[in-house]
Amino acid sequence: MPRKIILDCDPGHDDAIAILLAHGNAQIELLAVTTVVGNQTLDKVTRNALAVAEIAGIVGVPFAAGCPRPLVRTIEVAPDIHGESGMDGPELPESTRELDGRHAVDLIIDTIMASEPGEITLVPTGGLTNIALAARKEPRIVSRVREVVLMGGGFHVGNWSATAEFNIIIDPEAAHIVFNESWPLTMVGLDLTHQALATPDVRARIDAIDTTPSRFVGELLDFFASTYLEAQGFAHPPVHDPCAVAYVIDPSVMTVRKTPLDVELAGTLTLGMTVADFRSPAPDDCTTQVAVDLDTDKFWALIEDALRRIGEPAR
Amino acid sequence: MPRKIILDCDPGHDDAIAILLAHGNAQIELLAVTTVVGNQTLDKVTRNALAVAEIAGIVGVPFAAGCPRPLVRTIEVAPDIHGESGMDGPELPESTRELDGRHAVDLIIDTIMASEPGEITLVPTGGLTNIALAARKEPRIVSRVREVVLMGGGFHVGNWSATAEFNIIIDPEAAHIVFNESWPLTMVGLDLTHQALATPDVRARIDAIDTTPSRFVGELLDFFASTYLEAQGFAHPPVHDPCAVAYVIDPSVMTVRKTPLDVELAGTLTLGMTVADFRSPAPDDCTTQVAVDLDTDKFWALIEDALRRIGEPAR
Amino acid sequence: MPRKIILDCDPGHDDAIAILLAHGNAQIELLAVTTVVGNQTLDKVTRNALAVAEIAGIVGVPFAAGCPRPLVRTIEVAPDIHGESGMDGPELPESTRELDGRHAVDLIIDTIMASEPGEITLVPTGGLTNIALAARKEPRIVSRVREVVLMGGGFHVGNWSATAEFNIIIDPEAAHIVFNESWPLTMVGLDLTHQALATPDVRARIDAIDTTPSRFVGELLDFFASTYLEAQGFAHPPVHDPCAVAYVIDPSVMTVRKTPLDVELAGTLTLGMTVADFRSPAPDDCTTQVAVDLDTDKFWALIEDALRRIGEPAR
Amino acid sequence: MPRKIILDCDPGHDDAIAILLAHGNAQIELLAVTTVVGNQTLDKVTRNALAVAEIAGIVGVPFAAGCPRPLVRTIEVAPDIHGESGMDGPELPESTRELDGRHAVDLIIDTIMASEPGEITLVPTGGLTNIALAARKEPRIVSRVREVVLMGGGFHVGNWSATAEFNIIIDPEAAHIVFNESWPLTMVGLDLTHQALATPDVRARIDAIDTTPSRFVGELLDFFASTYLEAQGFAHPPVHDPCAVAYVIDPSVMTVRKTPLDVELAGTLTLGMTVADFRSPAPDDCTTQVAVDLDTDKFWALIEDALRRIGEPAR
Repeated sequence: MPRKIILDCDPGHDDAIAILLAHGNAQIELLAVTTVVGNQTLDKVTRNALAVAEIAGIVGVPFAAGCPRPLVRTIEVAPDIHGESGMDGPELPESTRELDGRHAVDLIIDTIMASEPGEITLVPTGGLTNIALAARKEPRIVSRVREVVLMGGGFHVGNWSATAEFNIIIDPEAAHIVFNESWPLTMVGLDLTHQALATPDVRARIDAIDTTPSRFVGELLDFFASTYLEAQGFAHPPVHDPCAVAYVIDPSVMTVRKTPLDVELAGTLTLGMTVADFRSPAPDDCTTQVAVDLDTDKFWALIEDALRRIGEPAR
Repeated sequence: MPRKIILDCDPGHDDAIAILLAHGNAQIELLAVTTVVGNQTLDKVTRNALAVAEIAGIVGVPFAAGCPRPLVRTIEVAPDIHGESGMDGPELPESTRELDGRHAVDLIIDTIMASEPGEITLVPTGGLTNIALAARKEPRIVSRVREVVLMGGGFHVGNWSATAEFNIIIDPEAAHIVFNESWPLTMVGLDLTHQALATPDVRARIDAIDTTPSRFVGELLDFFASTYLEAQGFAHPPVHDPCAVAYVIDPSVMTVRKTPLDVELAGTLTLGMTVADFRSPAPDDCTTQVAVDLDTDKFWALIEDALRRIGEPAR
Repeated sequence: MPRKIILDCDPGHDDAIAILLAHGNAQIELLAVTTVVGNQTLDKVTRNALAVAEIAGIVGVPFAAGCPRPLVRTIEVAPDIHGESGMDGPELPESTRELDGRHAVDLIIDTIMASEPGEITLVPTGGLTNIALAARKEPRIVSRVREVVLMGGGFHVGNWSATAEFNIIIDPEAAHIVFNESWPLTMVGLDLTHQALATPDVRARIDAIDTTPSRFVGELLDFFASTYLEAQGFAHPPVHDPCAVAYVIDPSVMTVRKTPLDVELAGTLTLGMTVADFRSPAPDDCTTQVAVDLDTDKFWALIEDALRRIGEPAR
Repeated sequence: MPRKIILDCDPGHDDAIAILLAHGNAQIELLAVTTVVGNQTLDKVTRNALAVAEIAGIVGVPFAAGCPRPLVRTIEVAPDIHGESGMDGPELPESTRELDGRHAVDLIIDTIMASEPGEITLVPTGGLTNIALAARKEPRIVSRVREVVLMGGGFHVGNWSATAEFNIIIDPEAAHIVFNESWPLTMVGLDLTHQALATPDVRARIDAIDTTPSRFVGELLDFFASTYLEAQGFAHPPVHDPCAVAYVIDPSVMTVRKTPLDVELAGTLTLGMTVADFRSPAPDDCTTQVAVDLDTDKFWALIEDALRRIGEPAR
């Protein structure tokens, strides 16, 4: 039986690939796509999400826009990495799709409350503002969610500061809320995603598919490669967000380690750091874990397979 | 034309008197009463709000329950001041009234979005969780609200710590959100409300009314007097929350001072302090002000007048 | 019997007047003058201190230079208030006086350890770096000191931020050390010193003395008046530092209030705030107090009297 | 030519071994041993240092006591690891040696100022209170010191909290001072020292030496093994402090990595964390580095060799 997920994202190059992976994999039933300010403003990432739906031929899945700004902090976007549109590189089609009328927070709450307990997995790949608001507005979702598998943070690696990752530091209070709820939570952080590098070999496999979606991915990766080289010195760009989706599809794609996790809200050098405590074995009631090592062959095979399954969608 | 307000509260002895003042004064049109965790848990303060509606004969006003916990911090309630029920003292009637089906956050948003810009005044007298969530979920309410007049904080006076007041420190992140939005905001803090003391003379005037609601207020004040004496050494209890309502009714009931305001989120000794900057005259675009001096005669006359207008309500 | 004091200062216009008051008052025996970075760099304030000694004809009192930078923070000086020299305005004589060979911290320690317990009062009127280092290097001084009477902080007033005063915020960690030691400590803060205004009447009384030191004070006040008007909008400049000396001479020159005191080290808006806790009467073992109301007549009479006693010193 | 070092320590089991290594290695000229509160109170660690001198037959090296408490924080000692004496396990001889009359801070300053620039290496293996005070009292030492090689911190490993190591968290402000000075600084942290495990094989080599000092080391390791097993779950105890001395003797004993380093002073979860920034190659003017991988064979050979050179000292 496929895993039902809600993908909360801020496309974003790697978010787009995460959407494609979720859409193209038979083990995933994509219940909703919700957007949140992050890589770019809410308007831009929402437009980008619809463009991805257009390109991938996603139908029957509600898309809803959520929070246009973080809880406490001011807006910080990432044009150096994702460009002015938030998804620079490919030409983006105008989508005729319409957004769900509801606020993303309500779509998340309604979807969870309408399903059976333990059915739905939340997959956030952007800042955690929507998820935090949903948990505070309707606390009963917490025990109904099967698990949260998020891309963000890093136990030993930062990118937006020496110790913090972008998705967490742009709304650390929201992250603190999400990390401290009682749902099972897997943090797929930079420690893991910096292993998901789009090497020339990966590119060659994607190019060989030669469909509209695969060419779109190729163009995303071209742009992503250039900004990651310039801004962070990466020879090949790390493709963060689909790693979280991949873990839901097949947990054996990565090793994980159970550990207490929390988010630093007060540090001068460490604001937004996701603090793992590896000093002792995690206690039995620990509900949080971190991703450690990626099986890159399995991971890229999932990406390739999803693109092949999507094929050339009707427009 | 009466002022339309939404009262967001956590009854609470003084919240109850604030509801009575808003209900009993002809200059106020009470559009909604919303509840939030604070003086006691959400269930208790919501029950208390309905009990006040019962006693005061409030009909046709939606009551809705909001957030059961603060945004980031854990729940802190005030049984030392308000007792186990949150409104100890009087016997509370069971209310047959039903809550509005909506979450307080949605009732607030819907009410504001359905009215003309500049029509509605928000009067929060508890923690600011509901108001903060409403502003984040639907940012357009901020420019549609006429003003926020809140009881909370203190520029030179604290009660829950040396520098912070209860309503602010129980959810400082929510307060930070509310204080930093662009709406006009009046902080009616402890500096002001510690002048609103229920002295024997005040009690005598209330007792003289001799109705069910006035006797209810008398019993609230008896309990409040005893806890304020024991917990904080007050000879007469300060009746905080109706001060905010009184300012909406008649701004001449207090002097105010325009000043930049912010909420400290990181201090060891100053978490939740409402920081005013009196070093220079406030800039022209400053939208925040603090209450300074209370005209106690005018204030208690408003309370007395409201109780007389309410009279003996039909049950 | 005169009170033995060590004056630790950063002249500084008002520091200079504090030195003159200490030197010119018969109730004070000035054992040492030590300097610390603050209003200007250590070199400048030390040169200024010697210039004051020259003008006032102070002989037989050791002067020693102390710390050139705060404990943890980077150097912040106040040229907007005190000018480039730290004591702009009057022409400063080159002094032929020599500094004591010891570091200020050691001079402070040696002087205290060589005297009887309870004999010496520390009067810091700058940042607290020297005093903090002395207390940490030789903890036994703490119980030997009679009391600390310092100019700095403010329980309800800030100048360098909305909540913090210059002497404290330039080295908050040092202030934290000094405020948390067990010696009796009187904080003469901005709440008090903003009452010590050099009005035209005060100026006239000083001008009438017509000696080299009084003319020097007049020139200091001219410059101080101009910067305080421009930088902080004061009609007449507050003459902070001599207030602390005045309290040692005659405690009746001001009212004080016993209260717990601490220094905020972690706040975003409140770093360096001196936090008093007025919620309850101070506990019996409370060793800290704050200055509240100044008897301005008495205060200026002390200044005038000291200048008259100094007269025209031999150079 | 041997390297001249000042060893600032808080013996402490591993501090004792660090003293023995420094004393027993021909490449080291031990100029002074200074003590600081840390593993136990100043009195205890100072007594322990003299006991080590007694056992090792160290003569002609001044020992001086320094700071009895951290700069800002209250005293925190480590009896769970080091026992009540701070060096539980072996019977400690009473030493007839006398301490140098000077404060450790002055001994450090005098020794450095009396030597040639670039001659002296500081090797702190405890909290950094003494070193910080020395740098603040006499800033000229900073450019005269050759380098600081300290045991403390950890870029990815904590022990006293999830993110902080004992030597740093007991006086984070002192550590901040030391880490931010311009001297070359090598942090030999837990990342490295958790590789220096006293395995049975190591124990066997030490036991085989069979002298008073080697038996003393054996008894230290017995106790250390038991507390590290119980308190932190180590199968074999990490012998931290001699690693710093070993690096001075022979830098090839470990790999190091140049990286910006700072100390977090404000975090809730990260107070005292030593934050390295590995996101980019260190800038050319970076003066800080961290120890990464230990050559355990070389390391233990140095320990064994030092004990053999010390032999059976005259008492």
